[in-house]
Amino acid sequence: MQETTHLSGVIAPVLTPFAEDGGPDSDRFIEHCEWLLDDGCTALAPFGTTSEAPSLGLDERMELLEDLLDAGINPARLMPGTGTPSLADTIMLTQHAVDLGCGGVLVLPPYFYKDFTTEGLFRYYAELIEEVGDHRLRLYLYHIPQMTGVPITADLIDRLVSEFHEEVAGLKDSSGDMEDTIALMEAFPDLAFYPASEAFLLQGLKHGAAGCISATANVQAGAIRALYDGAESGDAQKLHERVSAVRAAVLKSPTIPGLKALIAHYRNDPQWLIVRPPLLAMDASEQARFVQDMRRDLDFTLDIPDIA
Amino acid sequence: MQETTHLSGVIAPVLTPFAEDGGPDSDRFIEHCEWLLDDGCTALAPFGTTSEAPSLGLDERMELLEDLLDAGINPARLMPGTGTPSLADTIMLTQHAVDLGCGGVLVLPPYFYKDFTTEGLFRYYAELIEEVGDHRLRLYLYHIPQMTGVPITADLIDRLVSEFHEEVAGLKDSSGDMEDTIALMEAFPDLAFYPASEAFLLQGLKHGAAGCISATANVQAGAIRALYDGAESGDAQKLHERVSAVRAAVLKSPTIPGLKALIAHYRNDPQWLIVRPPLLAMDASEQARFVQDMRRDLDFTLDIPDIA
Repeated sequence: MQETTHLSGVIAPVLTPFAEDGGPDSDRFIEHCEWLLDDGCTALAPFGTTSEAPSLGLDERMELLEDLLDAGINPARLMPGTGTPSLADTIMLTQHAVDLGCGGVLVLPPYFYKDFTTEGLFRYYAELIEEVGDHRLRLYLYHIPQMTGVPITADLIDRLVSEFHEEVAGLKDSSGDMEDTIALMEAFPDLAFYPASEAFLLQGLKHGAAGCISATANVQAGAIRALYDGAESGDAQKLHERVSAVRAAVLKSPTIPGLKALIAHYRNDPQWLIVRPPLLAMDASEQARFVQDMRRDLDFTLDIPDIA
Repeated sequence: MQETTHLSGVIAPVLTPFAEDGGPDSDRFIEHCEWLLDDGCTALAPFGTTSEAPSLGLDERMELLEDLLDAGINPARLMPGTGTPSLADTIMLTQHAVDLGCGGVLVLPPYFYKDFTTEGLFRYYAELIEEVGDHRLRLYLYHIPQMTGVPITADLIDRLVSEFHEEVAGLKDSSGDMEDTIALMEAFPDLAFYPASEAFLLQGLKHGAAGCISATANVQAGAIRALYDGAESGDAQKLHERVSAVRAAVLKSPTIPGLKALIAHYRNDPQWLIVRPPLLAMDASEQARFVQDMRRDLDFTLDIPDIA
């Protein structure tokens, strides 16, 4: 009997850098992941929404994951996204991640069809778990109904946990509805829950959250880690207000282009601006204004080695 | 200069049969495609919504398409769906279909992200066309906002046609909003338009539609073909009412399981019931009631060779 271990703390859904030719840039990807782990992330969730994972090819996703391991990153600290609309492709990506020893996988529901039942969605996850057929699988459900149109409900979780209590390990809640997250945490105390925002981290930890998986951890992992570590200290409220203010300022712009613009600026590396369609990159003047506003309003800078 | 030719008439988004082990069943797929062409389809659109294409793996889609050609089906009569959320995967599937000589490809917009601009969506299709880089490409846009959350707007079409008038050939409109389809047909008279319902075929033809691409063509291709051929005859209204009534009766149940249940019954082949999660198959009693209702209310039977 294997003990279930949860990935906990501050987890970044890692941005995916692209090369000028449009392909993923493996070197910059590894460099960014290593910096995030140095800066305070306890674990990484590559191939999430913030990673533009749905815009990546299946081959690109598998190659980038292998590149991280080849660079020496411990797979136990990785929770790659492996969900696609297709059960066949999701089985393939999930098996690949489990074979590489990843600590968990974060799995979107199938998000093309909308008119199916909880039983149908249960069958989807059940067949995934049965087909992967590996006791090392730790599956985290990914609730982001504003993108998928397919919510992960308490009924579904209940059915999955009843049948697959070893494999179903937790849930990332990107709904932004913290009351709902808290209700789920109370209903399923054995699961690991991650709100998708550091602004909910302090409140979440009080209700038993395992940590947070937040887009803006790409640019403030250290500050979020300080909050996570100091959640019971006298500084907690101040740390909470700071990370929440930075998050709110970043989210005034489209999230992914904005995060990439900050990295591009503080690495002095315009290639980091590139996003894949249908997203659009910030242009130089939008970037300059964004960086300037963050600096003026919040004294925000990024502590990246080799800063220009 | 190559002349643009449009696939016109009655086009079925072909159902995908599965084997007991959950994989696609190539033999039954070929048999069904051949029957649809014999029964009255002028062309086929494999790997559409009705085909459960988003639930298929990329490899499965490419293999099934090759199987159709190996079976002797003329690729000029095929308009496979090649859209995925990922630009990289969509380029791969589209290039594959063009290389095989397919008459067209039907391309969904990327359907995970929702918060992008028309410019971003234009860049997606533009990069697809540029990367495929093949003058044989005939791209049909797939408008099905109830599934994708991403509408194909007149502004987008205008930009695409201005820049890629040779490659952008038409649009399948699954919105169910025929007034909108007619407005688009009037705005873009050089494009081929296909409402996604035979109930709109007669009205569509009066406004210049190229035909229809309808789920229920899987079970009444012959009757829709009679309407298409007889659209200016005295029988047109009667033919219209009959195909519309059959369609409405089928759509009282979930579309894909219902269509498969009809095929399974009239082929006396329960394997045809199988759908892939998140969809759920009809069970035997639901199937019996459905077939019985169709027979009682509409005298509906399927004219399939080798009927049991």
